[in-house]
Amino acid sequence: MEFSNTTIENRKPFGWVRMLLRGAGQVMFQNNAWTGLLFLVGIFWGAYASHNGAVAWGALLGLAVSTATGRLLSLPSADGEQGLWGFNGVLVGCALPTFIGPTAWMWVAVIICSALTTWVRTGLNNVMRPWKINSLTFPFVLCTWFFLLAARAMHSIPDTGMSAPALPAAFTAFHGASFTGLLAAWLRGIAQVFLIDSWVTGLFFLAGLAVSNIRAAVWAAAGSALALLTAILFRASAGDIAAGLYGFSPVLTAIALATVFYKPGLRSALWAAVGVVVTVFVQAGMNVLVEPTGIATLTAPFCITTWLFLLPLIRFDDVQRPDHTDWSVGRKPHLGK
Amino acid sequence: MEFSNTTIENRKPFGWVRMLLRGAGQVMFQNNAWTGLLFLVGIFWGAYASHNGAVAWGALLGLAVSTATGRLLSLPSADGEQGLWGFNGVLVGCALPTFIGPTAWMWVAVIICSALTTWVRTGLNNVMRPWKINSLTFPFVLCTWFFLLAARAMHSIPDTGMSAPALPAAFTAFHGASFTGLLAAWLRGIAQVFLIDSWVTGLFFLAGLAVSNIRAAVWAAAGSALALLTAILFRASAGDIAAGLYGFSPVLTAIALATVFYKPGLRSALWAAVGVVVTVFVQAGMNVLVEPTGIATLTAPFCITTWLFLLPLIRFDDVQRPDHTDWSVGRKPHLGK
Amino acid sequence: MEFSNTTIENRKPFGWVRMLLRGAGQVMFQNNAWTGLLFLVGIFWGAYASHNGAVAWGALLGLAVSTATGRLLSLPSADGEQGLWGFNGVLVGCALPTFIGPTAWMWVAVIICSALTTWVRTGLNNVMRPWKINSLTFPFVLCTWFFLLAARAMHSIPDTGMSAPALPAAFTAFHGASFTGLLAAWLRGIAQVFLIDSWVTGLFFLAGLAVSNIRAAVWAAAGSALALLTAILFRASAGDIAAGLYGFSPVLTAIALATVFYKPGLRSALWAAVGVVVTVFVQAGMNVLVEPTGIATLTAPFCITTWLFLLPLIRFDDVQRPDHTDWSVGRKPHLGK
Repeated sequence: MEFSNTTIENRKPFGWVRMLLRGAGQVMFQNNAWTGLLFLVGIFWGAYASHNGAVAWGALLGLAVSTATGRLLSLPSADGEQGLWGFNGVLVGCALPTFIGPTAWMWVAVIICSALTTWVRTGLNNVMRPWKINSLTFPFVLCTWFFLLAARAMHSIPDTGMSAPALPAAFTAFHGASFTGLLAAWLRGIAQVFLIDSWVTGLFFLAGLAVSNIRAAVWAAAGSALALLTAILFRASAGDIAAGLYGFSPVLTAIALATVFYKPGLRSALWAAVGVVVTVFVQAGMNVLVEPTGIATLTAPFCITTWLFLLPLIRFDDVQRPDHTDWSVGRKPHLGK
Repeated sequence: MEFSNTTIENRKPFGWVRMLLRGAGQVMFQNNAWTGLLFLVGIFWGAYASHNGAVAWGALLGLAVSTATGRLLSLPSADGEQGLWGFNGVLVGCALPTFIGPTAWMWVAVIICSALTTWVRTGLNNVMRPWKINSLTFPFVLCTWFFLLAARAMHSIPDTGMSAPALPAAFTAFHGASFTGLLAAWLRGIAQVFLIDSWVTGLFFLAGLAVSNIRAAVWAAAGSALALLTAILFRASAGDIAAGLYGFSPVLTAIALATVFYKPGLRSALWAAVGVVVTVFVQAGMNVLVEPTGIATLTAPFCITTWLFLLPLIRFDDVQRPDHTDWSVGRKPHLGK
Repeated sequence: MEFSNTTIENRKPFGWVRMLLRGAGQVMFQNNAWTGLLFLVGIFWGAYASHNGAVAWGALLGLAVSTATGRLLSLPSADGEQGLWGFNGVLVGCALPTFIGPTAWMWVAVIICSALTTWVRTGLNNVMRPWKINSLTFPFVLCTWFFLLAARAMHSIPDTGMSAPALPAAFTAFHGASFTGLLAAWLRGIAQVFLIDSWVTGLFFLAGLAVSNIRAAVWAAAGSALALLTAILFRASAGDIAAGLYGFSPVLTAIALATVFYKPGLRSALWAAVGVVVTVFVQAGMNVLVEPTGIATLTAPFCITTWLFLLPLIRFDDVQRPDHTDWSVGRKPHLGK
């Protein structure tokens, strides 16, 4: 019985804290509490820098609620120990206060939506298991989409922070940025994984990755850079590029393909690079697709592209592909045990 | 060979009539001909009260065509006996005359679309079987969506009864209703399961549920009430709430989760209540999602939410979860055998 | 090891040419190089007749890239031999130059997108295998949709040839066409399978089908005619009907249901005819669904309808349904071996 192991771990001081911090870390596939701590510091910095502290407190609330939900439903505790109950919830907690006005009911929505992600993740993983893929951050995407759309139909959770619904129209292409402008866009691409528009937060996130897995940090940086280059060459929207909105999904695709689901190697590195470029097109396409309702794509472009690169079960000659389910059943904790 | 049993049953007087009535009953999961009869009476009352008798005759036509299609394709007759061929068709027959103008070609569309639901149900159940879920009323939703969208592109089936396509925009929140206004909205929530906007029909439907399964009637009533409360608290559209449009999907979620797919108990009751609340947000979100094309959500919010609450295969300590496939392979008939 | 067989075949002169030509033929399920040759001739004729030669060269490029991708990824070579790596790529190569302006980056997009279809096909076939269905041309549809949507968000691949995004609105019904007008619409319905708006191309395509399989040619002709009749009776858009836009998906449904996935017979012929009619409604519906973003439906209506007619695993009394996977694992080559 797994529960007994958990109980023992929980008797240790800070068992729950570690579980929560790992939840934040797992957003970028790091089962590491220090990573999670640095991520949360980055979130708090970015949230207060943009005068919306609710995003940071939402992140904590979503993390706690989704993690507690896993325990309440007696889901397999091995997942919880590794932060796999919390990573969707922390994203819900970042997203809803970003897009919805700060009413009391918004906080109720954060609680319902982040709790929901925990069993939606279990359900979607059940669906995807036969093909050895994982639901990734899609439970967050799906549940948050419903609540963002609902915000357009409910005055108690006003759609204050959302774009106005519109038919796709003309826009300004990125051109002639300074080196510092490019640098900021590159770091913002990493920060936007948690919906934070701050290059400083990008540095915190890179540091958080580095303490857990230096390869992941390198690939996050490379993924954001390659995505930036692709978006500039194909002349996407200047505002979106500068805000890092072409970066966050490719960053996740890069980490997932290069460091989590395929063993490192030259061919898997090339495969991940192609994945990053494809994610940029999926991101551009989905930006257009969601315009008539004015909701955000969230990390859907990352999920879709990563699935498309995992489903063929390609086996590279120079690498042994690890079973895709490794991540879903969780990897060994890196901290404190 | 199942066919021979069927033949024997069909020799009995009224075998086909019973099969059709059960089809109407199965829309709310009741394998009971009296339930179906009361449902049809409610539909006729509501259709004529709103001066659109075509809805009632459409219901009968859709029911007959979809049930006959199951026989024509030699699908397993155990399903047909229990009304499982007909429940999608009866909904098609209510929906098309509600949204499409009364041309001769509209009736052809009812025939094609309701026949289609029978094998789409077989196909979708094949798809979903590995995860122990059922297509519920989604065959109706999917097929009807195609025809409603097509009505915008075909003059022979004019989109007379549909909302104009529009980008999501401002709306009036529900406020200050009288007790009788709330009572009517609560009963309309139940009536709208068959797209009927009449509180009297809601009473007929409750009576129909009660003759088959008193728990189902109680949960339908509770589901509509809890959905009404949620929609009011979150201040959804006044017009939609008054018309019962926030009620019909939660009513179905409540019956499904509390009385069909989980054994009754305190924890499954709580689970169903959470399901009802989540259905309201999914309904609100989908209302926005369909606005640019101006089609109705139909019962999609019920299907999606119920799947999300069944897929995790949660097992409550105090209840034994029945196998989810029970309903799909049909339950024992309650009448006349 | 399959690779060795392939190597032997490739030593034969024209091994690669045959593989590419079969790829063009497989768009209409014909594993026949002469068919592919006639299809390509038809494409070149139509492309130059409408002063957009890029479509024809795009077709060749997409075909070559997607086929080479299969080899590069060491996918099972039996598929490649039969042209199953190339049929999605050739469609990408027709579609992107049709809808996107002729910039250098458009050609880069053709290369990325057509390569992508090869492993997306492998992935989607893995997903669909349990239900004995095949991804058909959906890899082309999915990947091209992303790039068409992206074209609205990227100046380097301008959305020059696409409809403006719009809410569904009024349109003119087809009426009073001359016999030659109907004849042209009927042949264009076949030509539009490759997005070519030319009745002469329709003749080339019929000839291409006839050299491989006379039944397929007859069903393509019948499918286009029945779709035309249905669209006229239901009074769809005059412009769309005249351009053959109600024909191409039903043509593919007809070939698939009547000649590929079910053994020929009276009942499967009726089944295919119903499938053609249903495809027209799905086409009309999807035309409306895509209007707010202004992208094309591509062959999605064919894929969706064909799946809905295969998933129930209906078995007709007078015919033996061949295993649905036959096509996905490939059929015997008809030429030159």
